[in-house]
Amino acid sequence: MKSFDKSLEIETEEEDNVQKHENNSEASHNITPLLRDSWKPYKGTRANVKEQLLKLRDCLESVCRIQWYGFAILGILTAVLSFLMDFSVAKLLRAHLWLYAKLEGHVLLQFLCWTLYPACISAFASTFSHNICPFSTGSGIPEVRTMLSGIELPHYLSLTHMFTKFLGLICTLAAGSTVFLGKVGPFVHLSTMLGAYLDRLCRLMEGKKKEAGTEMMVVAAAVGVASCFGAPISGVLFSVEVMSSHFAVRHYCPCFFSAACGALTFHLLSMWSSDGETLQALFKTNFPTASPFFPLETLLFALLGLLCGAVSCCYLFCHRRILKFTKTNRVFSTMLTTEKGLYSGLVVFFLASLTFPYSAGQYLASKCTTKQLLTSLLDSRQWSSQSHNASVQLELGTLDWGSSGAPIFLPLAFFLLMKMWMLVLACTLPLPAGYFMPVFVYGATLGRLFGEGVAYITTGRDILGQRWTSVNPGGYALAGAAAYSGAVTHTLSPALLAMELTGQFTHAVPALLSTLLANALARSRNLPSFYDGLSISKKLPHLPSLKKACPQLPSTPLGQVMGVNSVQLQKAAGPAEVQSAVSNSNEARIPVVDTHGTQRAESYFTNWMIFAFAQCIEGRLDEVCSIHPNSVMLSPHNTVQEAYNMLSVAPAQTIFVAERGKLVGQITWSEMKLILEGLAKEI
Amino acid sequence: MKSFDKSLEIETEEEDNVQKHENNSEASHNITPLLRDSWKPYKGTRANVKEQLLKLRDCLESVCRIQWYGFAILGILTAVLSFLMDFSVAKLLRAHLWLYAKLEGHVLLQFLCWTLYPACISAFASTFSHNICPFSTGSGIPEVRTMLSGIELPHYLSLTHMFTKFLGLICTLAAGSTVFLGKVGPFVHLSTMLGAYLDRLCRLMEGKKKEAGTEMMVVAAAVGVASCFGAPISGVLFSVEVMSSHFAVRHYCPCFFSAACGALTFHLLSMWSSDGETLQALFKTNFPTASPFFPLETLLFALLGLLCGAVSCCYLFCHRRILKFTKTNRVFSTMLTTEKGLYSGLVVFFLASLTFPYSAGQYLASKCTTKQLLTSLLDSRQWSSQSHNASVQLELGTLDWGSSGAPIFLPLAFFLLMKMWMLVLACTLPLPAGYFMPVFVYGATLGRLFGEGVAYITTGRDILGQRWTSVNPGGYALAGAAAYSGAVTHTLSPALLAMELTGQFTHAVPALLSTLLANALARSRNLPSFYDGLSISKKLPHLPSLKKACPQLPSTPLGQVMGVNSVQLQKAAGPAEVQSAVSNSNEARIPVVDTHGTQRAESYFTNWMIFAFAQCIEGRLDEVCSIHPNSVMLSPHNTVQEAYNMLSVAPAQTIFVAERGKLVGQITWSEMKLILEGLAKEI
Repeated sequence: MKSFDKSLEIETEEEDNVQKHENNSEASHNITPLLRDSWKPYKGTRANVKEQLLKLRDCLESVCRIQWYGFAILGILTAVLSFLMDFSVAKLLRAHLWLYAKLEGHVLLQFLCWTLYPACISAFASTFSHNICPFSTGSGIPEVRTMLSGIELPHYLSLTHMFTKFLGLICTLAAGSTVFLGKVGPFVHLSTMLGAYLDRLCRLMEGKKKEAGTEMMVVAAAVGVASCFGAPISGVLFSVEVMSSHFAVRHYCPCFFSAACGALTFHLLSMWSSDGETLQALFKTNFPTASPFFPLETLLFALLGLLCGAVSCCYLFCHRRILKFTKTNRVFSTMLTTEKGLYSGLVVFFLASLTFPYSAGQYLASKCTTKQLLTSLLDSRQWSSQSHNASVQLELGTLDWGSSGAPIFLPLAFFLLMKMWMLVLACTLPLPAGYFMPVFVYGATLGRLFGEGVAYITTGRDILGQRWTSVNPGGYALAGAAAYSGAVTHTLSPALLAMELTGQFTHAVPALLSTLLANALARSRNLPSFYDGLSISKKLPHLPSLKKACPQLPSTPLGQVMGVNSVQLQKAAGPAEVQSAVSNSNEARIPVVDTHGTQRAESYFTNWMIFAFAQCIEGRLDEVCSIHPNSVMLSPHNTVQEAYNMLSVAPAQTIFVAERGKLVGQITWSEMKLILEGLAKEI
Repeated sequence: MKSFDKSLEIETEEEDNVQKHENNSEASHNITPLLRDSWKPYKGTRANVKEQLLKLRDCLESVCRIQWYGFAILGILTAVLSFLMDFSVAKLLRAHLWLYAKLEGHVLLQFLCWTLYPACISAFASTFSHNICPFSTGSGIPEVRTMLSGIELPHYLSLTHMFTKFLGLICTLAAGSTVFLGKVGPFVHLSTMLGAYLDRLCRLMEGKKKEAGTEMMVVAAAVGVASCFGAPISGVLFSVEVMSSHFAVRHYCPCFFSAACGALTFHLLSMWSSDGETLQALFKTNFPTASPFFPLETLLFALLGLLCGAVSCCYLFCHRRILKFTKTNRVFSTMLTTEKGLYSGLVVFFLASLTFPYSAGQYLASKCTTKQLLTSLLDSRQWSSQSHNASVQLELGTLDWGSSGAPIFLPLAFFLLMKMWMLVLACTLPLPAGYFMPVFVYGATLGRLFGEGVAYITTGRDILGQRWTSVNPGGYALAGAAAYSGAVTHTLSPALLAMELTGQFTHAVPALLSTLLANALARSRNLPSFYDGLSISKKLPHLPSLKKACPQLPSTPLGQVMGVNSVQLQKAAGPAEVQSAVSNSNEARIPVVDTHGTQRAESYFTNWMIFAFAQCIEGRLDEVCSIHPNSVMLSPHNTVQEAYNMLSVAPAQTIFVAERGKLVGQITWSEMKLILEGLAKEI
C-alpha cells in the first residue's frame, strides 16, 4: 500500500514543482495556503498572526504528524456532541414527564400530552430533515460503509447534512420510549462528517495536496460508536465488523487513540455534569463476583443464544418484509415520498396511544428511559421470588415492571410481543435514528425473561450434586442483550460492548458463547443482516450486501458489465489528440497504448499532462511526458469480485482490462460504482 | 475471494470426475477415503463400523460444516494441553521448592539445589530439542506469521516438532523465576500444529480434496493465545495484531468460537482441579469500584505510558544488539550452533546464582511464581504506607517484596534493573520459550513502582481542590503491564488482555491510554517490534518485518528480483511438448500463450492435464483441455509490495508478469518466498 502512496507522492511533488515554477514569487510551497491573497488589508498584523501559526504548526509537527491531533480532536468533538445530545434529550424528556405529572387527574389531557408531544416532534423532525437534507433520515451506517469501501457518495458528508442529522436525532430521542430508537448509527454518520472536515483541515495545515485518504473515515466510524457509550474497545471492534470485510491493522492505532480520547472526554463530561457519576461503567451492575455462575449454566447460556438467534431471524424477516411493503404498497410509498411529516406524526401518535401508561403502557415500562430500563433489567436480584414486604427497597425498575401486580413473567412476555412489531413499525419512520440500542434492550428483556424462568425453576434445587442457591437473572439479561444485538447486526462485538457498558467481566465467556450461537443461527442460509437489508433496500453500491442478496452476482464476468472505454492515447500522440482525449474523458488518468489495439497501457494524471502540453506546441507524447509504467491488468473473464478485491488493495490504482492484447477498458472506483449500481438494480 | 474458491472447486470436481472414471468399481467418490483397501481382514465388521461412521458424519454435517467441529475440538484440545502444562509445571516447581526447603540450614546444598536444578533441566531441554527438532527453539510466533502470510515453511508443523516443543516448554517453565520466560509464543505454535492436523482430518472427513486453506491456521493462532490465559477476546485480537497486516472479518466468527471453547475448557478444568478457583479471572484483584481513579490521574497514566514506551525502546535495542552479537561473536555463535546444551546450562547456572535467595535473589522475589508475582503487584493497597504491625495480614507478595526491611522502592527498582539484562540474556537461550509474559510482569513492576511513588507523594494532599485519599497503585501496575508489553510487541490488545486477566474494567480507559502512548513512542522512527527483530534475525521471508528493517526494499521493481520463467506452452502444443514442460516445471500451473512471445497467458492444473493427455495420443492442447481464461497480470515495473498485496487477496491465483506483451514470468507464493528470502539476505 505504501508504495502506491509513494508513487502518488512523487506525482504530487512533480505537480508541486510545476506550481512552484508558476508562482515564482512565493518562497516555499508549504506556506502557500496561508500566505496567499496578499491584497487583503491589515497586512502586518495578518503576517504576524500567520507567522505565529506557522511556528505553532512546526512545533506541533515536531511531536507527531498533524493527523494525530486531528484524531484526538475528532474523538473529543464527537464525545462533546454525544454529551450535548444526551444532555438536551434528558431535558426534553424531563419536560415531557413534568407536564404529564402536572396533569395528574385529567386523563384526557394526560393522553393528549402523552401522545401529541412525541407525535409533534417526530413530525417536525421528519419535515425538517426532508426539506433541508432528504438523505439524512435513517441510520447512516449503510451509507458510511459504502463510502468506506472506496465508493464516493456525493452530499453525504456536507455540513447541512450534519446539522440536520444532529437536530433530527435530538427530536427522535426526545420522543422517548414511544419511538424507542437509539443514536448509534447516526452518530457514526455524524462523526464521519466531522472526520471528513478535520481531514481536510489537517491536509491544509500540512500544506500537502495529498489525495483524501480513508484513514480519517475509518477512524471516525470507530469513534462514533465509542463516543456513544464511552466504550472505546468495543466501539472500534463494532465498526471493524460492520464496516469492512478486510481491516488494515495499521488503522488499529489511530482508531483506538481517537476512541480512547472520545471515551475519556465522555466519561469526564458526564462526571463533571454533577450527575453523581464517577469514572465508571455507564450502566451500573451489582453482580456477585465470588461464583458468578455454575458450570452447568453454560448450557443454558448456549440455549439462550439459540433462542436469541431464532427471534432475531424472525425480526429480520419482518424488517425485510416491511421495507419491501413500504416500497411496493402505493399508499405507503407515496406517503413516504411526499408526506413524510404526516406519516411520522400518525405512526408516532398510534404508537404513543399504545404506550400511554393507562392503556397497554403499564406493561411496557413506558415511563422509563432506555438507561433506566437497562439498569433494571441487569439487576442481579431475582424478581420472581421477591416478597412485596421485603425490607430491601424495591428499585424503580422492579416497581415499574411489577406495578400491575401480575407475576413478573407476564409483563416481560407482553413487552417482547408488543415491542417486536412496534420496533419494526418504528423502523419505517423517516427520521434520523439508530436501530442498535432498541435491539440491545430487546435482547436484554429476552434474556431477563429466560433468566427469571431459570431462576424460578432451579432455585433451591440440587442439580447434578450442586445446590443452585442463587441464579443471577441479570447475567442472562446481559448475555441476551449481547446475543440478540449480535445476531441482528451479524457481529460479535456486542458481547464485548455488554461487558464494557456494565463493567462486568465475570460473564464474558457465557456472553460470548451466546453471541456466537445466535450469530451462527442468524447467519445460516446466508441471510442478510439488518444493515445489509437497509443497503439492499436503498440499492447502495455495496458489494458484500449484494452478495448476501444474490450470491452469484459477484461472479459475473467483468466483460458483461463493464462500460467500453473508448478514450485512449497512442504513444505518438500530439498535443491536439491529447486535448481532445482529455475533454472526452472524465477519469483522472488516461491509458496510453503502444499503437491502437496493442496492449501496453500506462497511466498518469491529466492535470499535469495538460500543463506540460500547454508549454510545448508540438512533440510526441512519450518524448515530453514521463509515462507511469506500472499497471495491473485483468482479463474480461475475471469476475467483478476479483476486480473489487484488486481495487481494495490498490486504491490509488487504475486497473486495465485487456483481451487478447487489446485494451478494452479500465476500472476505477467510479467505474466500479456504476457496475455495482447496475448489479443492484438487477435484484 | 469466494469466486476463486469456486473456480478451484470446479477444477477439483473435474479432477474427481476423472478419478471416478478410473475407479469405476466404487459407487461414490465421497466414501473413497474410508472404504478403500477392501483386501484387509474382517470385512463385515469393518464395513459396519464404516457405515456407522459415515452415518455419523452425515448427521454431524446436517447441523453445520465439519470444519466447525474442528474449530471446537481445536479450542478444547489446546486448552487441555495448556492445562496439562500448567499442572505439570506446578508439580515440578513445587518439587524444587520442597527440596530447597528440606535443605534448610545447609547453605551450600541449598545453593547447589537452587542452581543445578534449573541448569540441568534447561541443558536437557536444549540438547533434547536440538537433537530431535532443531527448529523448535524460540517463540514460534515469527514462523507462524510467516506461514499465515501464505508462505510455506516445511517441517514447521510436524508431529515431532509439536512433541519436542511441548516437552521443551515444560522444562523451560519448570526452571521458574530463574529463567523467567513464558508460554504464549510456543502455545501459538503448538496450536497451529494441532490446527494443521485437524484441518487435514476435517478435509478427509468431508471427502473433498480442497486445497488446504489458511482458515484453520488463523483460528489456531488466535486459540493459542486465548487458551494460555482463558482470555478469549484479547487472545483473538492479539493474534490479529501480531499475525497479519490485513485481517479478513469473515475469520472473526471461527476465531472467537474456537477461542471461547478453549477459554471455557480452560476455566472449567482449573475449577475442577479443585484449586479453589471459580469461573473467574486468572489473577484476582480487589480494586475499589466506587471511584476507581481521580480525573487528574489520567495525566499520570499518560506519563506512565510514555515511561513504559521509553523503557521498551531500551529493551528492544538491547535485544537487537544481543541477537546481532550472538551471530557475529565467534565464541557465542559456535557455542550456539554446536554446544546448545552446555550454553544453556552455563547461562542458567549463572542466572540462578544471582536469583539464589541468599544472594541478590532476596530483592528479586525469586521464590514467587509468575502468578504470585502478578497477584502481589496488582494489589490495590499501598505498600509504602503499610505499618508492619497492622492488623491486616500482609500478603505473601508484599512480604516477599518487603522482606529486606528496606523501603519498597528499592527492591522494585533493583528488580527492574536486574531483570532487564537478565531477560535479554535469557532471550538468547536456545529453548522453546515465550517472551510475552515476562515482559508483562516487567511492565507491571514498572507501573507498580510508578504507582507507589504517586501514592507516596499524593496521599492526603489537596490537589486542585480534590483530596486524594487513596491512590490505587495496583491500577498503575495494570496500566504499566499493558503499556510495556504493548510497546514491546507493537500491539494494543495487551490493554484488553490486562482487563480480561484481572476482570477489572474500571481501569480500561487509562490502561488503553498508557498503551497507546507507549506504542506511539515505541513505533516512532519505524523501529522493528520484538517479533520483527526475531524475524529479521532469523532471515524469515516476512515482508512487513523486512519493511521495518529496510523501508525502501518493498519498492524494488519485480523485474529486478524475479526469476525468469522459461517454461511456457503454446496453445497449439502437442502431448510431447506438454510432457517435457511438466517435467521441467515445479509449479502446479503452467502458463499457456497464444504463440511464444504473445501475452495471453492462462493457467490450469498440471495433474489434470497429464491425465487428459495420457488419454489422447495427439491433438492440440486447446482442443483437448479447457484452459482457464482468468488471469491477473502485472508489469516488471510493479513493486514487490504490489505483487505481495495482489497475492494476498487472491491466494489461489498465479500472477503473470508481462512486458510489452511478452510473458516474462509468473509469481506464486513459492516464487514470492524466494524473492523475499533474496531480499532478506541483502539486509
